[in-house]
Amino acid sequence: MLEDYNEIQASQYHNGDDDPNSDIIKVSAKSRSTAVAGAIAGVIRDRSEAEVQAIGAGAVNQAVKAMAIARGYLERDELDINFQPYFIDVDIDGQERTAVRFSVYSFGR
Amino acid sequence: MLEDYNEIQASQYHNGDDDPNSDIIKVSAKSRSTAVAGAIAGVIRDRSEAEVQAIGAGAVNQAVKAMAIARGYLERDELDINFQPYFIDVDIDGQERTAVRFSVYSFGR
Repeated sequence: MLEDYNEIQASQYHNGDDDPNSDIIKVSAKSRSTAVAGAIAGVIRDRSEAEVQAIGAGAVNQAVKAMAIARGYLERDELDINFQPYFIDVDIDGQERTAVRFSVYSFGR
Repeated sequence: MLEDYNEIQASQYHNGDDDPNSDIIKVSAKSRSTAVAGAIAGVIRDRSEAEVQAIGAGAVNQAVKAMAIARGYLERDELDINFQPYFIDVDIDGQERTAVRFSVYSFGR
C-alpha cells in the first residue's frame, strides 16, 4: 500500500514542476484502486482539491472505485469529497486521445 | 435521442412505485451515454438530485461519460452537478454483485 502510494505520488511529478499537468493523478486500468485512493486522500488533505485523469473504460472504473474508497479514508479527517467529470483531449505518444478528468473537491462532513 | 430518453425513463419505474430502487437510473455497458445524460438532466431538473447505478467497468464508464454530458445539458438551466460514488451490494437474478452508485446533486452556476 505505502509503496503504491509513493509510486503514484512520484508519477504525479513525472513531467516536472513547470508542467501544469504535473499535479494530475493519472490512473490506468492496472492501477490499484486503494493506492489511487491513498493518493487522492493525500492531495485532498494538503490542498482541498485534486485532479484525476483516466483514459479508457478500465481506467475510468479504477478512478471511480478509488474515489469511493478515498471517501472512507477521509472520514477520519471529517472530510468528504465530491467530483465533477469532464472530457479533455490529451496527446499520448503523438496520438490524440479523449481522457476523462475528474475535479475532486473536499468539504466538511 | 428522445426515444432513448423515454426508454430510460420507463426503465426507472420498471420495479414498480413501491420499490425504493425504482428511482435509480440504471446504466449498462450498452447504454447510450447521451440518452443516460438526458435522463439524469431530466431527474435533476425535477428533483435536484438523482441516483445512478452501474455494475462493471463498461457500465461505470458509460455512467461517467453521461454525467459529463449532462453537465452540458444543464448549462442552459444555469445548473451544474457534482457526484459522490459509493459501493452497494445488489441482488441480480439471485447473485450478489457489487454495484457503484453515484449520488448526483445539483447546484446553481
